[in-house]
Amino acid sequence: MAAKQDPEALAAARPLLTDLYQVTMALGYWRAGRAHDPAEFELFFRQCPFGGSFALAAGLRDCVRFLRAFRLRDADVQFLASVLPPDTDPAFFQHLRALDSSGVTVRALPEGSLAFPGVPLLQVSGPLLLVQLLETPLLCLVSYASLVATNAARLRLIAGPEKRLLDLGLRRAQGPDGGLTASTYSYLGGFDGSSNVLAGQLRGVPVVGTLAHSFVTSFSGTEVPPDPGSEVNVIGIGTSMVTCPRQPSLGCVYKLVSVGGQPRMKLTEDPDKQTLPGSKAAFRLLGSDGSLLLDVLQLAEEPPPQAGQELRIWPRGARESCLVRPAQVEPLLHLWVQQGQLCKPLPSLAESRAFAQLSLSRLSPAHRRLEQPALYQVALSEKLQALVHRLRAGASL
Amino acid sequence: MAAKQDPEALAAARPLLTDLYQVTMALGYWRAGRAHDPAEFELFFRQCPFGGSFALAAGLRDCVRFLRAFRLRDADVQFLASVLPPDTDPAFFQHLRALDSSGVTVRALPEGSLAFPGVPLLQVSGPLLLVQLLETPLLCLVSYASLVATNAARLRLIAGPEKRLLDLGLRRAQGPDGGLTASTYSYLGGFDGSSNVLAGQLRGVPVVGTLAHSFVTSFSGTEVPPDPGSEVNVIGIGTSMVTCPRQPSLGCVYKLVSVGGQPRMKLTEDPDKQTLPGSKAAFRLLGSDGSLLLDVLQLAEEPPPQAGQELRIWPRGARESCLVRPAQVEPLLHLWVQQGQLCKPLPSLAESRAFAQLSLSRLSPAHRRLEQPALYQVALSEKLQALVHRLRAGASL
Repeated sequence: MAAKQDPEALAAARPLLTDLYQVTMALGYWRAGRAHDPAEFELFFRQCPFGGSFALAAGLRDCVRFLRAFRLRDADVQFLASVLPPDTDPAFFQHLRALDSSGVTVRALPEGSLAFPGVPLLQVSGPLLLVQLLETPLLCLVSYASLVATNAARLRLIAGPEKRLLDLGLRRAQGPDGGLTASTYSYLGGFDGSSNVLAGQLRGVPVVGTLAHSFVTSFSGTEVPPDPGSEVNVIGIGTSMVTCPRQPSLGCVYKLVSVGGQPRMKLTEDPDKQTLPGSKAAFRLLGSDGSLLLDVLQLAEEPPPQAGQELRIWPRGARESCLVRPAQVEPLLHLWVQQGQLCKPLPSLAESRAFAQLSLSRLSPAHRRLEQPALYQVALSEKLQALVHRLRAGASL
Repeated sequence: MAAKQDPEALAAARPLLTDLYQVTMALGYWRAGRAHDPAEFELFFRQCPFGGSFALAAGLRDCVRFLRAFRLRDADVQFLASVLPPDTDPAFFQHLRALDSSGVTVRALPEGSLAFPGVPLLQVSGPLLLVQLLETPLLCLVSYASLVATNAARLRLIAGPEKRLLDLGLRRAQGPDGGLTASTYSYLGGFDGSSNVLAGQLRGVPVVGTLAHSFVTSFSGTEVPPDPGSEVNVIGIGTSMVTCPRQPSLGCVYKLVSVGGQPRMKLTEDPDKQTLPGSKAAFRLLGSDGSLLLDVLQLAEEPPPQAGQELRIWPRGARESCLVRPAQVEPLLHLWVQQGQLCKPLPSLAESRAFAQLSLSRLSPAHRRLEQPALYQVALSEKLQALVHRLRAGASL
């Protein structure tokens, strides 16, 4: 993927925007001769934010922009050499200097999709060393974007479709780019615009704000905005939008699911922290009225579920399998970047915003409820369930 | 001030990183022929964060960097023209195009200073239109930096001087720059380093982290870190450092205190929201043992308090004046930028960090206490108190 002249990409995230131990791990892989092992990671969350039953996937456009520009410059590599042990093999640094995203493939939920616990927002595959280095920046780019989009979607659900919801939170953000991210993804999640002029210039967010700042309200995610149903039709939200005070981070994780073609699984005593092994596909099953039934994770090589056909699945956390007959089946993970090449244009921000509202409209009221919602089911295919069992049994031998 | 080639400045904050209504206000000033009126704003907070009695001032280095680069480019002005009313006078845009910081003067608390409610962190003076436009970016750059530095200082007070405190929160930040800001200012506030490699490269923060991420604890600001006093000597903190969950924003404000040489004051029924009029100086009064007594705000033209001399002051919120005889007097607000020129080099980040620890050590244990601390007193000089009374009386006539 050619790193085009894109000053915003340099501004937003650079390859060194990572944790040092990622570099240490990369060095470990390199020393072990495993730098080029084909690997796949999944980025997902374990629990929906704000006590709700859903999140909105967001941040993919920033990830793609970051990957397009991914390249360690001489100064970057020199800096890494200054913080790694002095006896580090110079060939490692040559390896780093040559890295780019040409070996990276990304599947992801389209931005604005409903996302549920354990369903990957991103699947990232490529050479082990490189995709390991991507962990921290991708987490940084996806987690907050998805959190803010979800926060905005919840505020939209509270306010109803007619009110104008405006983001006025720039001054309360974690610095300039926190504000830019919040303005961008609150719009994606259902806001009407932002007072942040830069978000308009760089991201096409509608810029608003003849509104004085004293209009800024600070209601939290569960309160009803002031004067619902009254003549107040414009609600500006500052701090509560950008800081998401009820839950200021989403807690996404990025886990290895396959390396060298072999499925990998993290085995822990805490079942909540177990990962699901193998390269996977994900499908959303719908009823005949278009409402969402559940999501199914299965191994990538399995044939997709068929509309109208009965399917045996294992709901997560359940001890028994069950049968489901979907009226419609939708694949969830789209191929966006293949071997470093963008496969199809990303939707515009406004298109993703419309898609988010459409997605939410298909969620049942019980799942859409903001407090104590019905739990949306995520299930495993029989083969994936069997693989989990096999790996778990093998580990306990 | 020459805008040197500084890619980080462009990355960090641009002139359009502002709220649209600042531009609308600028247009209003311009139409009224007031664009060049000499004006002064103060940036301060009204309440200390996290229930404490102090904050640490931080973010000045980013403000200076932002001001050095401040310049609306053609594309910026064209974008503004696209969002302002189509009949806006083209001469307004020419005015914007010519703006730079050459008329701006900044006094500020040195980074790492103790800051208290109502005492300006920044005093910004210059042409009314321009300094109005600076409101949002300066708030954005100071508020979060000061919040994070304060959070770090509190965690350092809990952990004691010996433990190594490491910021591992990059992945939980509000995007890339939120992480960079958190890593920079948690170090300033008393942390030992960060896993964030970019913070090392761009800001000189010690980069750490052979530590696996599973070491990340998530204790909140008031808990004692795990195993205090035990052999655990390194504490990595992720989410709780960057998101400051107990209070995710500081709530700084930026208020006009003087325009055209006349003091201005915001009169409201809420005494907490009243501003203090006029161009001011601020002093810290100390006892003979070097401990902090209180801060005094006075009019800029008043002679500074003298060590060993009795001074009549009005503690804020008190109905009576009182006398104080300081053993030492320190001026608080340093001149950093005069007419757009940097007057003296900014301290290095490590110097500011050392200064923060020194500052904290002079605070009495009762003020340093993290929960229900003694209130640190901020007082007005007799002349400033009289001015407040005169303006309030004039308004109620």
